[in-house]
Amino acid sequence: MVVRAAVAGASGYAGGEVLRLLLGHPRVEVGAVTAHANAGERLGALQPHLLPLADRVLEPTSPEALAGHDVVFLALPHGQSAAVAEQLGDAALVIDCGADFRLRDAADWERFYGSPHAGTWPYGLPELPGGRAALTGARRIAVPGCYPTAVSLALFPAYAAGLVEPEAVVVAASGTSGAGKSPKPHLLGSEVMGSMTPYGVGGVHRHTPEMAQNLGAVAGQPVTVSFTPTLAPMPRGILATCSAKALPGTTAAAVREAYAKALDAEPFVHLLPEGRWPSTAAVYGSNAALLQVAYDETAGRVIAVSAIDNLTKGTAGGAVQSMNVALGLPEELGLTTIGVAP
Amino acid sequence: MVVRAAVAGASGYAGGEVLRLLLGHPRVEVGAVTAHANAGERLGALQPHLLPLADRVLEPTSPEALAGHDVVFLALPHGQSAAVAEQLGDAALVIDCGADFRLRDAADWERFYGSPHAGTWPYGLPELPGGRAALTGARRIAVPGCYPTAVSLALFPAYAAGLVEPEAVVVAASGTSGAGKSPKPHLLGSEVMGSMTPYGVGGVHRHTPEMAQNLGAVAGQPVTVSFTPTLAPMPRGILATCSAKALPGTTAAAVREAYAKALDAEPFVHLLPEGRWPSTAAVYGSNAALLQVAYDETAGRVIAVSAIDNLTKGTAGGAVQSMNVALGLPEELGLTTIGVAP
Amino acid sequence: MVVRAAVAGASGYAGGEVLRLLLGHPRVEVGAVTAHANAGERLGALQPHLLPLADRVLEPTSPEALAGHDVVFLALPHGQSAAVAEQLGDAALVIDCGADFRLRDAADWERFYGSPHAGTWPYGLPELPGGRAALTGARRIAVPGCYPTAVSLALFPAYAAGLVEPEAVVVAASGTSGAGKSPKPHLLGSEVMGSMTPYGVGGVHRHTPEMAQNLGAVAGQPVTVSFTPTLAPMPRGILATCSAKALPGTTAAAVREAYAKALDAEPFVHLLPEGRWPSTAAVYGSNAALLQVAYDETAGRVIAVSAIDNLTKGTAGGAVQSMNVALGLPEELGLTTIGVAP
Amino acid sequence: MVVRAAVAGASGYAGGEVLRLLLGHPRVEVGAVTAHANAGERLGALQPHLLPLADRVLEPTSPEALAGHDVVFLALPHGQSAAVAEQLGDAALVIDCGADFRLRDAADWERFYGSPHAGTWPYGLPELPGGRAALTGARRIAVPGCYPTAVSLALFPAYAAGLVEPEAVVVAASGTSGAGKSPKPHLLGSEVMGSMTPYGVGGVHRHTPEMAQNLGAVAGQPVTVSFTPTLAPMPRGILATCSAKALPGTTAAAVREAYAKALDAEPFVHLLPEGRWPSTAAVYGSNAALLQVAYDETAGRVIAVSAIDNLTKGTAGGAVQSMNVALGLPEELGLTTIGVAP
Repeated sequence: MVVRAAVAGASGYAGGEVLRLLLGHPRVEVGAVTAHANAGERLGALQPHLLPLADRVLEPTSPEALAGHDVVFLALPHGQSAAVAEQLGDAALVIDCGADFRLRDAADWERFYGSPHAGTWPYGLPELPGGRAALTGARRIAVPGCYPTAVSLALFPAYAAGLVEPEAVVVAASGTSGAGKSPKPHLLGSEVMGSMTPYGVGGVHRHTPEMAQNLGAVAGQPVTVSFTPTLAPMPRGILATCSAKALPGTTAAAVREAYAKALDAEPFVHLLPEGRWPSTAAVYGSNAALLQVAYDETAGRVIAVSAIDNLTKGTAGGAVQSMNVALGLPEELGLTTIGVAP
Repeated sequence: MVVRAAVAGASGYAGGEVLRLLLGHPRVEVGAVTAHANAGERLGALQPHLLPLADRVLEPTSPEALAGHDVVFLALPHGQSAAVAEQLGDAALVIDCGADFRLRDAADWERFYGSPHAGTWPYGLPELPGGRAALTGARRIAVPGCYPTAVSLALFPAYAAGLVEPEAVVVAASGTSGAGKSPKPHLLGSEVMGSMTPYGVGGVHRHTPEMAQNLGAVAGQPVTVSFTPTLAPMPRGILATCSAKALPGTTAAAVREAYAKALDAEPFVHLLPEGRWPSTAAVYGSNAALLQVAYDETAGRVIAVSAIDNLTKGTAGGAVQSMNVALGLPEELGLTTIGVAP
Repeated sequence: MVVRAAVAGASGYAGGEVLRLLLGHPRVEVGAVTAHANAGERLGALQPHLLPLADRVLEPTSPEALAGHDVVFLALPHGQSAAVAEQLGDAALVIDCGADFRLRDAADWERFYGSPHAGTWPYGLPELPGGRAALTGARRIAVPGCYPTAVSLALFPAYAAGLVEPEAVVVAASGTSGAGKSPKPHLLGSEVMGSMTPYGVGGVHRHTPEMAQNLGAVAGQPVTVSFTPTLAPMPRGILATCSAKALPGTTAAAVREAYAKALDAEPFVHLLPEGRWPSTAAVYGSNAALLQVAYDETAGRVIAVSAIDNLTKGTAGGAVQSMNVALGLPEELGLTTIGVAP
Repeated sequence: MVVRAAVAGASGYAGGEVLRLLLGHPRVEVGAVTAHANAGERLGALQPHLLPLADRVLEPTSPEALAGHDVVFLALPHGQSAAVAEQLGDAALVIDCGADFRLRDAADWERFYGSPHAGTWPYGLPELPGGRAALTGARRIAVPGCYPTAVSLALFPAYAAGLVEPEAVVVAASGTSGAGKSPKPHLLGSEVMGSMTPYGVGGVHRHTPEMAQNLGAVAGQPVTVSFTPTLAPMPRGILATCSAKALPGTTAAAVREAYAKALDAEPFVHLLPEGRWPSTAAVYGSNAALLQVAYDETAGRVIAVSAIDNLTKGTAGGAVQSMNVALGLPEELGLTTIGVAP
């Protein structure tokens, strides 16, 4: 079986990463590659690292261009996926790398995105409890946000084991590709090199309700998340430092055991041996999430740190992994846990 | 009056930054520059950015070399300052950029540093309540750690105003110069570029009790700090994201007012206008601390973020500022709030 | 005497650097700060590192705003300086950081800039033979391009001493601030970090004729320059690797002697001791140019390498240095040879 | 057929990259992984990006450990390969990533490496004229140096077509991984970020005679190379800017045609369309070499610029490509022309 896949939004970072992974997927054939403003250009001018597709010309994103594929990846600006998806019908598996169908709570959606809620699709994080079941055979998949991926993987074992209070504090650093390819002054290399800076502080970042949704589902009760994203001087990677107050009776051993148990069978999430800590460099271009956890007795908090590549496990890799699950392919197909380092 | 200053440990990053600032200080004359392993070498080979001192030869660190100066800056590895200071007598103002005399609690010292407590010197953070009084006329000054500087400045206004619970959560990113000039594999450029990684997680970093000491003194009660430091791919700078649960009745307006009031008269600490956030790039080489604060109603937390240059305000600039206070010079002399950017 | 200075184009990188230096100049008072698209905004939002000017509001660039100053710095896009300068009259010293008045040859100008030649102003590189004389008392100054500064300083001693053939080969790496603050996709942090890339290859970069003009004047005969600029993943700095075939009889000793002789009295150009090489890090924010030179006997070439900060010595520092010369102030006033490192 | 491969020197950057590629090679099984100082450690602690091998324990490098493999990759410090290779016998294909067997001229070897010449092995650059034939069936392969790979690919078409004089001028920028993993002060992240610096200037870099050897063989006459390497603030990548004086009658069209003809059939070397230039980012982790060429009529020079990943095409990828040729496997097996970007 050959899976024929189209990519809408192929000129951006998410679309480019989907293509990079699909080119290495043994069961996928890359079909249409489409774009909006860059339609008509050769891919080689926009994604010079994708040499095998250098001469491909980007088509305008349209139902016609995307028709006739087994899978359609949408890497579009927020708010544009619903209209495209509607026209695609149920024949294709549609995988949305945007936010449109991630949230279950319409009020949360409207508060954080300021537009009517388009609906909710099966959520593409197989590692969450029940995650694989929800994806098996799915025809629509909402790929998680990059930060929610890193944070949910870091904290769900603690909530699944009932070890911590339902108030998480998260500070995460992201590489600049998370902010997209649209040129803005604060994203210039001159500005970001040598600089760490926060943004969306005070609970206003759009990924916040998605984290609360995931952790609340695992905890079986509402979980609040104090989330502060920061922009780091690197092109890729997310390092998420997550903590929550330990419930009485928690011990370092219980914490470690809970994480080992929750993650032991996961092909892409790796709990590091004690004494070693995750780095974003080690997952550069890989679909792995590296995790470490500690219990600070003095402060009474469990601290979990995860490192992912925001474009791979945090976007395109998560999308391909979920596609594999949905189509009944081996979950690891076309993905790797080997990073490009140093 | 000319202040004659010696610098012990002039081949390292802290010592180099002290020299950089002293060279621009209108009342200071640079006297002896000493080192240990690098004694006998020209400064130009070790600190090529300090052109005016390029031909100076480093002397071995010794009481003789350091004698006869008005001020002696110690930029030595932890644990070496006490012995040197003892031999200097009270004639000189001795300013220790190391940790040896920062902590008041001997048990804390022994637990985190694993050696007998050498004592406590006046603490060089003039911005803390009572900070200037403690430094005026002092003959010994303990320069705060770089992280405690960033974190104490970010959170003390909240504790001074009684707005938050005595449990702070801090995640801070530091440039690599904070880890020193001693070559270690994980500090190689090949390793750190493109990488964010935590270290000293779980309450074990040595700067933790210093933060608790500062904030506890302001709060008038013990404050615990959950502190996670991370290494960021930049040579300089600290971005500290600090938060604590708001006490009942806290409002966004009250938070802002407390910070404005606490910082209004400070020459080096600058509360940014709402909507703008600190970046380490903006304080590159400057003695300024940029601050912003937000109140997250959903999570019920006050989030304060500060950016400093770890080598300037976080070490050498703080040292010179405290020297100015101790000697009765204008506090801003030889220091700037202008960064080198982009 | 207080020199009152205006800066037109204060929202860009060149204008920001001029302001940074003027704020530290003991004889200058910053007057009007103007901009085009950003007029009406506070400087703090655009140049957050210039804290003392944070509340200054940018005025629209106009003859009225710029009138009544002793010195007017123009940091405008190429082609806009002539019109502004004309309206300023001879009362003010006008210092153009742009290219408009650098070239003497109208044909060169038209070929490389595609517009009518506006004229030629005294050239702001005091280190060139006759450079200071041409600037003394000048009312108009054309600040050299950043690359021509680095390359002319590296090679003029070899041409002055008649050691090399009139065909120079230059490859230079520049930090991204040289490309300005206007957001373009290829200047995004995501694109430039981890990347070296050439541009303007094959003799088409606009700084090429300026280099040829400078070196030809020193050599007393036409000099061709094969110039390849490259963009390096750093915010500031130029490293220029320059070489030319040695004339018969040249020796390593003769080369070194020629450079030492030409540069010995220069306050800002520093020939490093043998065995040490310039780095852009060592001149970060400083007005120094670091030089080294070697003679490759096998290839028969003299290789000179210079490092400058493109925004300081390469633009704003060169402008202030030339202002000092023009006004009869000490040439080093308000400038430093101390870099911010590491 | 399964090729069983051992890697000696698996704790360094070259060895790690060999392992990264072998793990993705469909016909290779990773056998022994050995080290010297790090023997006994788990690979996960030293190469955290190679998750599938995290629990492998490094054996001491010895004939016993390396015996019984079809291929042995040597990623050892210069000078150590001969002794190891001798003990391996002819049963195994031995691929030396070091310099020991690259040079044909013993005098060159002794002059640049200061030790007796160990011999010459078939040279692992299949793209050179005759390159594939020399490798087919070989039992010993000398992997080219990273710089000579970039430079030879950039210039050999010009020499093969007889377009340029036998005096090449090369300035190349390399990422820091080219300097290895051994911690030295000048390789610290604090030192290299924000910095460009040359080294080995004046014809003394050890890769110089290797370039001259390759280009001379193509030209059919001795070629001198003026080579200046520079260290760039990025972990990986080489950008080589190479030029030579055009012979009379050369035209831009002839240059382009020569390059197109020489490279058209190459799977890994890609001549970019006119107007686009190579960047190291586009070949991050890929085995591709991107090339562009221009003819500067004014300076009379042909300028060719190439970008490679120093660890992939410049070392480990070149090694695997040559292994494929030697073993009669498809040359592209286990290699990719897709980079990880941005």
